[in-house]
Amino acid sequence: MHILVTGGAGFLGQQLIKRLLAQGQVQVDDSAAQGITAITALDVVAGALADPRLSNEVGDLSQPGLVASLLRKDTRLVVHLAAVVSGSAEADFDLGMRVNLDGTRALLEACRALGTQPRVVFTSSIAVFGGDMPAVVTDITPPTPQGSYGIQKLIGEHLVQDFSRKGFIDGRSVRVPTVVVRPGKPNGAASGFASGIIREPLAGIEAVLPVSPETVMWLASPAAVIGMLMHTIELSAQAWGWHRSINLPGLSATMQEELDALRVVGGEAAVKLVKYAPDEKVMRLVNTWAGRFDTSRALAMGYRADADVLSIVQGYAREYAQG
Amino acid sequence: MHILVTGGAGFLGQQLIKRLLAQGQVQVDDSAAQGITAITALDVVAGALADPRLSNEVGDLSQPGLVASLLRKDTRLVVHLAAVVSGSAEADFDLGMRVNLDGTRALLEACRALGTQPRVVFTSSIAVFGGDMPAVVTDITPPTPQGSYGIQKLIGEHLVQDFSRKGFIDGRSVRVPTVVVRPGKPNGAASGFASGIIREPLAGIEAVLPVSPETVMWLASPAAVIGMLMHTIELSAQAWGWHRSINLPGLSATMQEELDALRVVGGEAAVKLVKYAPDEKVMRLVNTWAGRFDTSRALAMGYRADADVLSIVQGYAREYAQG
Repeated sequence: MHILVTGGAGFLGQQLIKRLLAQGQVQVDDSAAQGITAITALDVVAGALADPRLSNEVGDLSQPGLVASLLRKDTRLVVHLAAVVSGSAEADFDLGMRVNLDGTRALLEACRALGTQPRVVFTSSIAVFGGDMPAVVTDITPPTPQGSYGIQKLIGEHLVQDFSRKGFIDGRSVRVPTVVVRPGKPNGAASGFASGIIREPLAGIEAVLPVSPETVMWLASPAAVIGMLMHTIELSAQAWGWHRSINLPGLSATMQEELDALRVVGGEAAVKLVKYAPDEKVMRLVNTWAGRFDTSRALAMGYRADADVLSIVQGYAREYAQG
Repeated sequence: MHILVTGGAGFLGQQLIKRLLAQGQVQVDDSAAQGITAITALDVVAGALADPRLSNEVGDLSQPGLVASLLRKDTRLVVHLAAVVSGSAEADFDLGMRVNLDGTRALLEACRALGTQPRVVFTSSIAVFGGDMPAVVTDITPPTPQGSYGIQKLIGEHLVQDFSRKGFIDGRSVRVPTVVVRPGKPNGAASGFASGIIREPLAGIEAVLPVSPETVMWLASPAAVIGMLMHTIELSAQAWGWHRSINLPGLSATMQEELDALRVVGGEAAVKLVKYAPDEKVMRLVNTWAGRFDTSRALAMGYRADADVLSIVQGYAREYAQG
């Protein structure tokens, strides 16, 4: 079978592809696991991974005909990670609409045109929640996105829902928690500081905390997210039933708790590198996000979150910050 | 001021334009009512109304550049009624996507391009609700559309919401109950029978009831809907606040209650013209719709529904069925 991963050169994309290649097979229907013969990674830059089974394609998702040209008769799985992130989608409305909405739609139409009802995993976001919310967001809390990114992700979910109902695809949308700790350079996500305040100090670099230390966020480690994406890929259509969107499990943590974990792992010197510099604009946006969830449905479907914040920071230090 | 009404040749469009022309002025900002100097009615067929202030344009909403060409510097209000209705959007997925999604987006982009933040009224539908719902749908019940029409309307609401938040338009979306009694010919709406079982018998013609007489629907008369649309047009942006979608008040009524009202107005002979012929396909769709609502928010904002089913049927008989 062939797999398409959009956003395949991004951090999660590369991790997921690595995992799929290592595993060599995956179960996308109710019969049995199938061998992975080919993976196409599509992104606006070329991915760094090299493998005879992997082809790295560079292009814009919303470019007419592009996705269709990358799909094959034996494409059984599409993992749609590509997106213009929250800060960027808010700063450039048209860019967000083109990639997040038109791109997602083009992808779904190309999958539909295959006529084989491929499995499609869409990474939505907890940014679909915001504003006046209950203290704890549950599986039936109505999404009320406060930014263009959340709106575009929610529209993507609706399309996945209807394309699945119509039998065009076997779709599932997962609302991913804020990923902490992202390695590498900051991206345009407004939530980037949640990774930055761990990553930079562990590399001996100053970092800025633009929100109050009491700010609560809903977090998951890269390893937990990859695990949950693999679970999403392999869950049967029956396990989903009608409703194809789900809030993924995570951890509720304050930025102070992150700093406390940083102290354990990197010492007081690391914590001293974090400068508290409140940014009204960032705070206004982040404070509209949900920080506490009851993800009963996902837990019942077998999804699992991280144990605690310390293990997230320790995991990052082990893998990326051995310096 | 100039007003654009999409779907302007349709039943509600014509009623609304008649009302606006008769009134001669309307209040679309916080200063005072302004004179209506011009109205453009856009539809796929020409409207029948004639007035020196009215121009009837024929065209497809999703045609590139069309809506932009119809907007003017003094366009202060756009009422977006045009849509591919539920049955048709389900039967022809691409048509529904093109008109209901692409058309709505083209309209919003054209309004944004004006740079004057025009007021935009979008008629959404109670078809955004469906499936596993509480017994009574409230203002915080999450929309879970069961058909492509409801999905497309909901996506339109999200766009109106975000375009309003960004300050591109002053938008508001109203979820309109099933309109009963629609005069004229049946349209492609799956809910058409709710009008047909009154309209046809009062004209001496047989009608089919394809669902159980116990089926509960959420109804409003054309007069009530026009009144609520006028109210939507004139409500201040402050009255709306952040959330730009609302469930409109209506009446919960069974089809049996409609038949009872028909008996009062048209006698037993009229009721005898209604043939009960259960249609599994229609029933399956209609039974996923919400029939009972608590519309506290709309009532607090000054919206008003009809008094009862009998007055709806009597109103129709008075206006359209004097034969």
